[in-house]
Amino acid sequence: MKQFQHDDILSSEKQFRINMINGLLGYKTLNLLGTTNSNRLTNLCVISSAFHLGANPPLIGLIMRPQRDHNDTLKNIIATGEYTLNNVLPEFYKEAHQTSAAYPSEVSEFELCGFSEHYISGFKAPFVSQSTIRIGLELREIVDMKINGTTLVVGEVVQILAEDEIIGDDGFINHITAGTVTVSGLDAYFLPEPLARLSYAKPDLPVQEIKEEK
Amino acid sequence: MKQFQHDDILSSEKQFRINMINGLLGYKTLNLLGTTNSNRLTNLCVISSAFHLGANPPLIGLIMRPQRDHNDTLKNIIATGEYTLNNVLPEFYKEAHQTSAAYPSEVSEFELCGFSEHYISGFKAPFVSQSTIRIGLELREIVDMKINGTTLVVGEVVQILAEDEIIGDDGFINHITAGTVTVSGLDAYFLPEPLARLSYAKPDLPVQEIKEEK
Repeated sequence: MKQFQHDDILSSEKQFRINMINGLLGYKTLNLLGTTNSNRLTNLCVISSAFHLGANPPLIGLIMRPQRDHNDTLKNIIATGEYTLNNVLPEFYKEAHQTSAAYPSEVSEFELCGFSEHYISGFKAPFVSQSTIRIGLELREIVDMKINGTTLVVGEVVQILAEDEIIGDDGFINHITAGTVTVSGLDAYFLPEPLARLSYAKPDLPVQEIKEEK
Repeated sequence: MKQFQHDDILSSEKQFRINMINGLLGYKTLNLLGTTNSNRLTNLCVISSAFHLGANPPLIGLIMRPQRDHNDTLKNIIATGEYTLNNVLPEFYKEAHQTSAAYPSEVSEFELCGFSEHYISGFKAPFVSQSTIRIGLELREIVDMKINGTTLVVGEVVQILAEDEIIGDDGFINHITAGTVTVSGLDAYFLPEPLARLSYAKPDLPVQEIKEEK
């Protein structure tokens, strides 16, 4: 078995450490983050740092790397107060990955990487037409993480657009039907296969599988 | 297509909203969080809120729900300054789910749910023997999220224990070899199948698949 202690981690080669630490936690949420500036120049980038912060109010957090003054996405979020998260499908995960390239500010990754913008009334930020689950968020809080210079962006879910068959009667989001892709580390993409849904856990009851409803 | 606007979300039935909002982002990191109190009474709980915060220093964030005064895990993390994250395998994802039951403080979910504790020299918190990727963390920062009363726990990775074949020469963590399970929503478990690893994205180059090394 391999063991890396603190000193081993800190002294490891830079790219090795980046790969290892990024991959430690397992499969991550994968979304395309869509924004626009006040001149309607759009921006799109793939992110794997979005996380559930709470259901009431419905809040999502995401981490942006330390480049606040140069980051078009963060500037757009702050300028317009709105952004979108859109799931990634097997048909376009390579194009989604390509949005992480360092394109100049004056061009839109939507056009350069082959995505279409979808707009809804009363909401400025662009959704991704090709996605099957699309979330519109309003900025609620920016937290500067002093420990490493990253930025925690907290937004409230104000729009959900999804194909009809994806949201079940109990609110369950079916990511198999949606075709959602996941990622590990910086660059490895995966399509999950279901094991089971499990019943709400109680101390005195064995866990049971929830059978699929039609 | 279904569309939920802000008012629809806020007025939806409570469990429906919890399921829907928890499931929106797709597949999430899944880990067992191990702690101990100062009397060596251990605690284990399944979490899906851990996220990569940075590689240098190696930092991981996780969200704890608003129950700070009653939460054994958070109390243990604060008391000892140490905790572990351990991946979940298909052989024990049901037992991992069962750790979310509301057991009394005086008992350990390790024993009740069928997990063995693994300790290493100089580190107080228990690892899960059955896991193939095990991370030891030291508490660095607690951030109270005023927006909804949750707690953001930031820790630095100070130990990594993994089976030999899981960490590649470039630091890539192979979660297929590791057998890592992922989760969506509150209760749906999945085992991913690989699509591809993709090359570092550059503006003028098409994305290429990285071939598996032996």
